[in-house]
Amino acid sequence: MRGIADERAGLAEKGRSGSFANAQDKPASLQRCGVKVELGRRYRFSASHRLHTSRLSDEENRRVFGKCNNPFGHGHNYVLEIRLSGEIDESTGMIANLTDLDAFVEREVIDALDCKSLNEDVAVFRNVVPTTENLCIEIFERLKRFPGARLERVRIQETSNNGFEYAGE
Amino acid sequence: MRGIADERAGLAEKGRSGSFANAQDKPASLQRCGVKVELGRRYRFSASHRLHTSRLSDEENRRVFGKCNNPFGHGHNYVLEIRLSGEIDESTGMIANLTDLDAFVEREVIDALDCKSLNEDVAVFRNVVPTTENLCIEIFERLKRFPGARLERVRIQETSNNGFEYAGE
Amino acid sequence: MRGIADERAGLAEKGRSGSFANAQDKPASLQRCGVKVELGRRYRFSASHRLHTSRLSDEENRRVFGKCNNPFGHGHNYVLEIRLSGEIDESTGMIANLTDLDAFVEREVIDALDCKSLNEDVAVFRNVVPTTENLCIEIFERLKRFPGARLERVRIQETSNNGFEYAGE
Amino acid sequence: MRGIADERAGLAEKGRSGSFANAQDKPASLQRCGVKVELGRRYRFSASHRLHTSRLSDEENRRVFGKCNNPFGHGHNYVLEIRLSGEIDESTGMIANLTDLDAFVEREVIDALDCKSLNEDVAVFRNVVPTTENLCIEIFERLKRFPGARLERVRIQETSNNGFEYAGE
Amino acid sequence: MRGIADERAGLAEKGRSGSFANAQDKPASLQRCGVKVELGRRYRFSASHRLHTSRLSDEENRRVFGKCNNPFGHGHNYVLEIRLSGEIDESTGMIANLTDLDAFVEREVIDALDCKSLNEDVAVFRNVVPTTENLCIEIFERLKRFPGARLERVRIQETSNNGFEYAGE
Amino acid sequence: MRGIADERAGLAEKGRSGSFANAQDKPASLQRCGVKVELGRRYRFSASHRLHTSRLSDEENRRVFGKCNNPFGHGHNYVLEIRLSGEIDESTGMIANLTDLDAFVEREVIDALDCKSLNEDVAVFRNVVPTTENLCIEIFERLKRFPGARLERVRIQETSNNGFEYAGE
Repeated sequence: MRGIADERAGLAEKGRSGSFANAQDKPASLQRCGVKVELGRRYRFSASHRLHTSRLSDEENRRVFGKCNNPFGHGHNYVLEIRLSGEIDESTGMIANLTDLDAFVEREVIDALDCKSLNEDVAVFRNVVPTTENLCIEIFERLKRFPGARLERVRIQETSNNGFEYAGE
Repeated sequence: MRGIADERAGLAEKGRSGSFANAQDKPASLQRCGVKVELGRRYRFSASHRLHTSRLSDEENRRVFGKCNNPFGHGHNYVLEIRLSGEIDESTGMIANLTDLDAFVEREVIDALDCKSLNEDVAVFRNVVPTTENLCIEIFERLKRFPGARLERVRIQETSNNGFEYAGE
Repeated sequence: MRGIADERAGLAEKGRSGSFANAQDKPASLQRCGVKVELGRRYRFSASHRLHTSRLSDEENRRVFGKCNNPFGHGHNYVLEIRLSGEIDESTGMIANLTDLDAFVEREVIDALDCKSLNEDVAVFRNVVPTTENLCIEIFERLKRFPGARLERVRIQETSNNGFEYAGE
Repeated sequence: MRGIADERAGLAEKGRSGSFANAQDKPASLQRCGVKVELGRRYRFSASHRLHTSRLSDEENRRVFGKCNNPFGHGHNYVLEIRLSGEIDESTGMIANLTDLDAFVEREVIDALDCKSLNEDVAVFRNVVPTTENLCIEIFERLKRFPGARLERVRIQETSNNGFEYAGE
Repeated sequence: MRGIADERAGLAEKGRSGSFANAQDKPASLQRCGVKVELGRRYRFSASHRLHTSRLSDEENRRVFGKCNNPFGHGHNYVLEIRLSGEIDESTGMIANLTDLDAFVEREVIDALDCKSLNEDVAVFRNVVPTTENLCIEIFERLKRFPGARLERVRIQETSNNGFEYAGE
Repeated sequence: MRGIADERAGLAEKGRSGSFANAQDKPASLQRCGVKVELGRRYRFSASHRLHTSRLSDEENRRVFGKCNNPFGHGHNYVLEIRLSGEIDESTGMIANLTDLDAFVEREVIDALDCKSLNEDVAVFRNVVPTTENLCIEIFERLKRFPGARLERVRIQETSNNGFEYAGE
């Protein structure tokens, strides 16, 4: 009495459909063991920064960084997309539990950067120019030990036109 | 020998189609005099701000503004949409020349706010909290004398979830 | 045994909850008669145009329309949003059937404009400059007789920064 | 020694600049009393629904609702935008505290609708077809008593092409 | 009398410009043989699902899947992007005919999934948890035999923050 | 007296934190030498095109290109995203100066294509069908000699559903 609209189930081609009748007995054969999938998840935070380095003269700073060298800084709505890869868990059908991932990212990144001044509130940027290139690396380092899946890449969209991506060394 | 794909031209209903044969002679009759259209145009700028007022105690400031009261500020990519209305010019088919409008907005708003700290670089916000509500009003005041069309509303999208709109008094 | 997660049903406040027990008998009392809602629906089409008018000299055309006066034209992905209002039908809970609306817009607008040159393929624009202001009016005229609901406004987003809106006369 | 980039502060035109020298003494005069601004805030939730009414025959249900009458339902990522208006508070520069608003919407709407079946989990939709028109009204009723500002409109984007808006009676 | 605005045509660098004079005779030399390009095309469908597996206890299901374990399900607007690679056809300048591709995707994927319950209406998901990870694989399997180009990857955006990607085994 | 909210600075793990005390003396050790980051930057232009080739009969052209073979052409808002990779400069924290990049892209691509007819105004497309596949290659060739970083890929989004990507040979 079920309404199965769909007779061409592609997954069946992988040898899983033969066991439909007794699927409850050995569901593992229906799952994809060792299949690698990539997850992308977006987070958003707002922060301010000033591009300036003590390694250059004031004149050089103005020439290189232009308006971004403004002494009082400016800011962005950063959109962070992290990409993780992993094998699909047989039982859950997931490569990572998003609840765990969100808690990890919240603690390691969002709490530290959201509504902050990168130059003043984040230790490493007191000695490193807080360009979005450097911010990608900083965030990659903070997230690479996430236990649930392998961190592949960090991408930060700084404005609607500008994005940066870092995939580790 | 032309490929007119379209026989149901709606504009014809407004009394313009009768003059198609000699359209070159009196094109004015084909234009819509006094028809009001609204134009919306978006601009983008990045700035930092700190929400804090000397009218409240430090404790109250923290309670009211939360993370946005962070002493070193934070920032946003503001998306400004201005709405203007006007009658369509008979010759040009436009209500305002976008080249003129862009130059006006650039001079009055973008130059003053892009890559700036609202609190430190914009005079009025030394005495007024630079919330996006107040920023809408400030921008409306700066743009309301645009000579080419009537400014109807200013809308600022502060984040992907937050927007504010001001339509004058 | 049903899982009603939600005890604060706002609609109940409008006098409908009292009849829950015998809802099958008089469902009409549960519907909102005469409540006006607005529907916005988006359509997309791609077309080319050239901004030029025989009412101006070539020199004036170049000055007024700038790059858009390029003799061979250029084009856009236009995003059309139409807004319709109506009362919610007691039985269907809808103000208009989208299947009917889509067929109407397809026939009156999309077939005539998609993958077309506005100047060459659309009769009215042989005598009227195909600005997006004028395109709004043309589309409003074509759609205003949709029988299922009242056409309130036509909005066309020409680029990610530029939009125009026409609400009839 | 401050870098005031901006000499044309528009707000000054409203009679506030004269008091810049002693702004600390009477900041109230610098604020805009009684100025009305509109706030739009977006929330997102995912839910399933089935369009079906006992007032129509099965055949009529299929004809009117098409694929949306599928017996097992389907679902959407609903984007809710609520619009509120209010006067700017002199001290805070805000029309409503977003922390309060978020808590209210979370409790009244998101908790009740996110990851739910509208037909099965939300009481009112056991007797009312869960179209997005009706969902707008339901949400308006739940939110209209927000104490901090006046609820003007509720808009729900059902898909990237479809949106509905309700402004109360 | 033609307006060739552009003298720096990059394609000319690839040895094609020498034959401009007699391009009609041997246009093949002007095309890029064997040049590989990737096409990404988006499709949208709305479906409901419930995350639940008989391999776990009810308590474990609730813990692992949280709100997504809701007995009556919920739903999403899924955005599917498929990436295909191929060599540019000399005559048509295309790697695949989008009309053919659309018909294939419509038949294999959209008809089967749009406005459906993944758990109830799609055979494979009666034995496999309908996570978006598994949905990527299912769609990849259904599309990998498209004759016109090589399927590289399937990406599904489940919400504005969540996406999954599968590139085959 | 500074408010360093953040004690878990990930960059410190890379051997840079030990030198914080005398950071002014050897800041180079704090920078990431030889770390490769990818930059994506978007540009937008509007152009018209007609898909037609003299290598096919008129009948074949209509069959292959469908509506896109319309004699008078149509157009798009093309969104160009270019991806460049490079090592982060020790002093500036950047892989390329966006001011330089923008000037290069403006001169080589935007000036030549914006508000143009690809078929009529761009030399190479008088002999090559101006599909977006071919447009990707043309733009890649024009940009690959940018001196500041390595051009990895060119992606053009033709409509909200269609994109093409070329990574060189």
